[in-house]
Amino acid sequence: MTGSTPAKSFPLPEKMKAWVLDSPEQLRLTEKPVPAPGPAEVLIRIDAVAICGTDVEIITKGLPAWIRGGLPFNKEFTPGHEYMGTVVQLGAGVDEYAVGDRVAVEIHAGCGRCERCRQGMYTSCLNYGLNYGENNKGHRANGFTTDGGFAEYAVNHVNTLIHVPDTMSDEEATLIVTAGTAMYGLDVLGGLIAGESLVVTGPGPIGLMGVAVGKALGAEPVILTGTRDSRLNLGLKLGADHVINIKQENAVEAVKRITGGRGVQYVLECSGAPNSLNEALDMVQRGGRICLAAFPGEPVPVDLAKLVRNNIYLYGIRGEGKSATHRAAALMNQKKFDAKLMHTHTFKLEELPTAFKYFRGRIEDAIKVVIKVS
Amino acid sequence: MTGSTPAKSFPLPEKMKAWVLDSPEQLRLTEKPVPAPGPAEVLIRIDAVAICGTDVEIITKGLPAWIRGGLPFNKEFTPGHEYMGTVVQLGAGVDEYAVGDRVAVEIHAGCGRCERCRQGMYTSCLNYGLNYGENNKGHRANGFTTDGGFAEYAVNHVNTLIHVPDTMSDEEATLIVTAGTAMYGLDVLGGLIAGESLVVTGPGPIGLMGVAVGKALGAEPVILTGTRDSRLNLGLKLGADHVINIKQENAVEAVKRITGGRGVQYVLECSGAPNSLNEALDMVQRGGRICLAAFPGEPVPVDLAKLVRNNIYLYGIRGEGKSATHRAAALMNQKKFDAKLMHTHTFKLEELPTAFKYFRGRIEDAIKVVIKVS
Amino acid sequence: MTGSTPAKSFPLPEKMKAWVLDSPEQLRLTEKPVPAPGPAEVLIRIDAVAICGTDVEIITKGLPAWIRGGLPFNKEFTPGHEYMGTVVQLGAGVDEYAVGDRVAVEIHAGCGRCERCRQGMYTSCLNYGLNYGENNKGHRANGFTTDGGFAEYAVNHVNTLIHVPDTMSDEEATLIVTAGTAMYGLDVLGGLIAGESLVVTGPGPIGLMGVAVGKALGAEPVILTGTRDSRLNLGLKLGADHVINIKQENAVEAVKRITGGRGVQYVLECSGAPNSLNEALDMVQRGGRICLAAFPGEPVPVDLAKLVRNNIYLYGIRGEGKSATHRAAALMNQKKFDAKLMHTHTFKLEELPTAFKYFRGRIEDAIKVVIKVS
Amino acid sequence: MTGSTPAKSFPLPEKMKAWVLDSPEQLRLTEKPVPAPGPAEVLIRIDAVAICGTDVEIITKGLPAWIRGGLPFNKEFTPGHEYMGTVVQLGAGVDEYAVGDRVAVEIHAGCGRCERCRQGMYTSCLNYGLNYGENNKGHRANGFTTDGGFAEYAVNHVNTLIHVPDTMSDEEATLIVTAGTAMYGLDVLGGLIAGESLVVTGPGPIGLMGVAVGKALGAEPVILTGTRDSRLNLGLKLGADHVINIKQENAVEAVKRITGGRGVQYVLECSGAPNSLNEALDMVQRGGRICLAAFPGEPVPVDLAKLVRNNIYLYGIRGEGKSATHRAAALMNQKKFDAKLMHTHTFKLEELPTAFKYFRGRIEDAIKVVIKVS
Repeated sequence: MTGSTPAKSFPLPEKMKAWVLDSPEQLRLTEKPVPAPGPAEVLIRIDAVAICGTDVEIITKGLPAWIRGGLPFNKEFTPGHEYMGTVVQLGAGVDEYAVGDRVAVEIHAGCGRCERCRQGMYTSCLNYGLNYGENNKGHRANGFTTDGGFAEYAVNHVNTLIHVPDTMSDEEATLIVTAGTAMYGLDVLGGLIAGESLVVTGPGPIGLMGVAVGKALGAEPVILTGTRDSRLNLGLKLGADHVINIKQENAVEAVKRITGGRGVQYVLECSGAPNSLNEALDMVQRGGRICLAAFPGEPVPVDLAKLVRNNIYLYGIRGEGKSATHRAAALMNQKKFDAKLMHTHTFKLEELPTAFKYFRGRIEDAIKVVIKVS
Repeated sequence: MTGSTPAKSFPLPEKMKAWVLDSPEQLRLTEKPVPAPGPAEVLIRIDAVAICGTDVEIITKGLPAWIRGGLPFNKEFTPGHEYMGTVVQLGAGVDEYAVGDRVAVEIHAGCGRCERCRQGMYTSCLNYGLNYGENNKGHRANGFTTDGGFAEYAVNHVNTLIHVPDTMSDEEATLIVTAGTAMYGLDVLGGLIAGESLVVTGPGPIGLMGVAVGKALGAEPVILTGTRDSRLNLGLKLGADHVINIKQENAVEAVKRITGGRGVQYVLECSGAPNSLNEALDMVQRGGRICLAAFPGEPVPVDLAKLVRNNIYLYGIRGEGKSATHRAAALMNQKKFDAKLMHTHTFKLEELPTAFKYFRGRIEDAIKVVIKVS
Repeated sequence: MTGSTPAKSFPLPEKMKAWVLDSPEQLRLTEKPVPAPGPAEVLIRIDAVAICGTDVEIITKGLPAWIRGGLPFNKEFTPGHEYMGTVVQLGAGVDEYAVGDRVAVEIHAGCGRCERCRQGMYTSCLNYGLNYGENNKGHRANGFTTDGGFAEYAVNHVNTLIHVPDTMSDEEATLIVTAGTAMYGLDVLGGLIAGESLVVTGPGPIGLMGVAVGKALGAEPVILTGTRDSRLNLGLKLGADHVINIKQENAVEAVKRITGGRGVQYVLECSGAPNSLNEALDMVQRGGRICLAAFPGEPVPVDLAKLVRNNIYLYGIRGEGKSATHRAAALMNQKKFDAKLMHTHTFKLEELPTAFKYFRGRIEDAIKVVIKVS
Repeated sequence: MTGSTPAKSFPLPEKMKAWVLDSPEQLRLTEKPVPAPGPAEVLIRIDAVAICGTDVEIITKGLPAWIRGGLPFNKEFTPGHEYMGTVVQLGAGVDEYAVGDRVAVEIHAGCGRCERCRQGMYTSCLNYGLNYGENNKGHRANGFTTDGGFAEYAVNHVNTLIHVPDTMSDEEATLIVTAGTAMYGLDVLGGLIAGESLVVTGPGPIGLMGVAVGKALGAEPVILTGTRDSRLNLGLKLGADHVINIKQENAVEAVKRITGGRGVQYVLECSGAPNSLNEALDMVQRGGRICLAAFPGEPVPVDLAKLVRNNIYLYGIRGEGKSATHRAAALMNQKKFDAKLMHTHTFKLEELPTAFKYFRGRIEDAIKVVIKVS
């Protein structure tokens, strides 16, 4: 794996620049010690990191674990989880990666010892949020329970790394985890989607990657719904066969029209709109399947009779499980779709607040805003 | 299978007694021609038939297909789908069953030619409700789209038959399809349930069979929730390790108490109560699974955030798929549980209205009310 | 599906030209009545039909059912199963296809009533080879148990049809069933093959389609082994990342070299060579999977210790199950690979013996030899 | 989990008695330091340990890793892997178990970081046999790659522990891992085996547990083949519906006789006899499945044509994967079968050579020979 070339070495500073979250909406640039990798971990020099909608939630509301635990903000916590970089130091026992390797990251390391991890469902780790470290059994989830990527360096467990080929840019590599989440959604829907009809609802980053991955695997037709033509047009470039602007046409009726009245086999729900599940239940055929990759902020009315009477299976997905990120990276590496079309803006690490402003305000139609760190 | 004994023969009358549904709540006993089995079908002399909650819905509201189609009641339609009997005539090409065989029935024959039937998901047949017959591609669903079992005879497709051993009474055999529905629910939850924790919500017939089948397969603990102590006590006899009377204790808190705070792996929801899915979402562990075998009559608020954040899979089930009825019958045949405990009352065919009165009013704590036909 | 254009009609002759198999190696061109489609069947005017290696076996040895049954050759039997054509007549109850539709075919209709068909495993139908027809429960397998495609017309069950788009040539459409067989092999290996390593052994038509489908779905690397450079070069054009000429390099060592010593996740064995399974067992990683799409003519020594100690799963596949043909056709329709590269020669129906000579002798490096019928 | 009772404490000696393997057939009783549990590990006081056929292989030939690596015998290695005991010390971060808990063990901890462990296939860990410890990524497999249970104490990873209820004797608890291996075999065959026909070939401990678990889950019929009537009679007590003494009747013919010519759905091969796979291929129906839990010592002729033509899936199993041991323990805890029937002899730790003599010579019809340590 690591080849026979002389190992590269990288001079490591003692301190690094890192953004920390003081309190809601209060990001502060500070200096922190460069962390050291433990057994089965590596130190990564972060080269680029993208902003995710979940980062906005964390910055505005705090981490879910803090909220549930009634904890005060940890004023030294560094968010950011869609990053990539270069391995610069190996922890004990690591030979899967070499110093100098370019890597992208998954979020969920898994504790490796709960029932879920033992089953291979590590994004559903039952020890998520517990203290992490040599004497603890917590699960490392960078940017959520351990320090993340709005910084110059981060430590990652080897389980959360994906090789990035030289032919892929830093910016594109930050999109691997997004594509991996969409891939996980399609995996849980069954995986065998060539020739099957697929609706993706909501043209955010995961929805757009759902279109791209679905089409790369041969889904037919791929139908994307949304409210903004610019996003829908991007969906067409990423592989959608049909797009529906739901401001202009009822989504369910349009799906029925496109499919000759039959509905579709699969819906990947990425909008979080209050009525999206009910609409999905009306779009799928009897015996069809729906994956929820997004959700409304509050309980919403759902017509469960349709779900039961039509033998619908509904899959909530947490993160990027089943090693889907590796599959998504392979598709990107093979140029099956061009994830870079989603990348709209680039900023420097020091400009993180401006980057968030663009992302949150969708300024200049921002989709994926990337911080180029080094 | 059919042995070498001389084939039995049964004299067949031309006419038979059958109940028909004239209009809502108007069941009428009449005479009909004894039907003739077509290719791949058999004629069954009905020996016993049980009343199901769905029969009540049909009798009060009409068939779903009629309602959706705005059709008038078909005044010659015979409902009833939980029956068993004796094969008395074979259609062309049938050698899987012999005249004289005792059989129980499944509901869904499947059209055998839609995408779902071709996948083995015949209860989700896409041609359900279409006209059935030699020149049509409809799906036979006795008691729903074709004549059912509140009569002396019925025709069944060979796909819908299960052998009944001589050691099983007629009355017990009518319960096979109910056990098969519960088995199908546990199958879609994953099948490997020995040693896994299971909550069954709602001690109706399917819920009680869910307890029995779950325990027969080794689930541990099996927890049953409900509102009536008589039903919960029956659940204990059928294998529940714990019962929770939700009038006396909050169901979610009780499940947490019993499981040391961890929640359960599986919930089989059989109550149809408005908040049952939300409660199930609070009962299952992260990465757990829920099967809905019942549903509320109207849309209800559901907290989808819990489903997505915790990677919950939710399975709506239609009928008794995946040949689960055969598996359930095998467990009953091996005396793994005593389904007869659910059988509370017996009436004659002429007494069908009285039988319904007992069933609907839960008179004398009626659970399974059986019509003994011949 | 069938659109609103006026239905096309096709004048039907009473007689058709058809090749029949008199005795081993004795194909005879004759006239037969044009068959009539029964319920759930259509009549197809055959436009093109390809020659398969199995056709050669049938022509030289007779049908497996004849051989096993000790039966004489049925002198009116028409072989040929890789065909496509135009629907010219509909049997009773057919509305899935319209007269004028272009269709390719699968082989296995399934009886629709055995345990396997009921599970969706119709290529493993337990009633294969039984008499077929209105009063029988046999399974239609055109070119094997019922008349096939070396003729002007054939009857097909609707379950065996795949729509062919106008953008696909007749010749290419004959290759759908071959691609579908390779797809079925990859499906049973797990389906989620993006980014996974795959060896295909044997560059015959199924092996070459295995390469093409595997790469279309993102497998990486895809390694093809064989003995002839012309075929291996074709493999490269169809998507192989590496090819190994096993006359020049040991296959197992080459796979280890390419994979850095780790071996691969999947092997699709398409050569039927005597030692191929042992080699596959040495190529796969612990926990890997092997699909056998071909087999040696006689029992061969197999080192089962490797299979057990390394937790290898081995899948024998019969035909083109799980609707894989539809998935393969979708990939071809989307131009994910160019199956036409396998098509090397075209002959007329009258030239069938010459076509077989080219195919069997691999004259001019023949791979797929197609009979253009009309 | 650990309750609120005051934690028990156990005085720990510095030294312990342990058997070590000097060279082939040379077991020596010695003293070793009591090992200390690391993070995620516990120290177990061994209460009982059973002898497995694999122990005999190790003692006669050395460990597979030594043999493959050309290594000399490690003269301090302690074999033994079917043990149970009492947790007497917790490593860092362990709260899943408490001091005083009775536990049985699985063999394979898994490295937790290779592709297989990440998928939940930890018995197929790709890092098996690598050095194990804080700075290494090896996989702990007690009795194989790390010290095992023919001693007074052993260290186990929490992933390899199963709670033992107070109602189960020490001797019975040593049989959990054997039952778990049989359960794993039935799991990979599909899990839904109620009502399905099952042949178990070979009435050794795994085969007998295959009968017991298969019947506990409702398989029907369960047929056991073997050569010794005493073992077959034990199979009947454990749940076999039919036994076949293959010295008196051809196994394939007997299975066909019992199943009315149809063959069975599943075969669990536990004999390792040279022709057992060919016979299994003749016993299963088209589309059936075979699990190999044993294997011949050398390559044997296999008729792969039958496997391919009949779409047979063949599963080699390594160890006790998919947490099957927990499921098996639950069935034993619920008294679904009486594993104790397999326990024939008990010896003291000092008597290990005598115990092996009984086991290897099948003296007094020995099946499971248990060493009662404390």
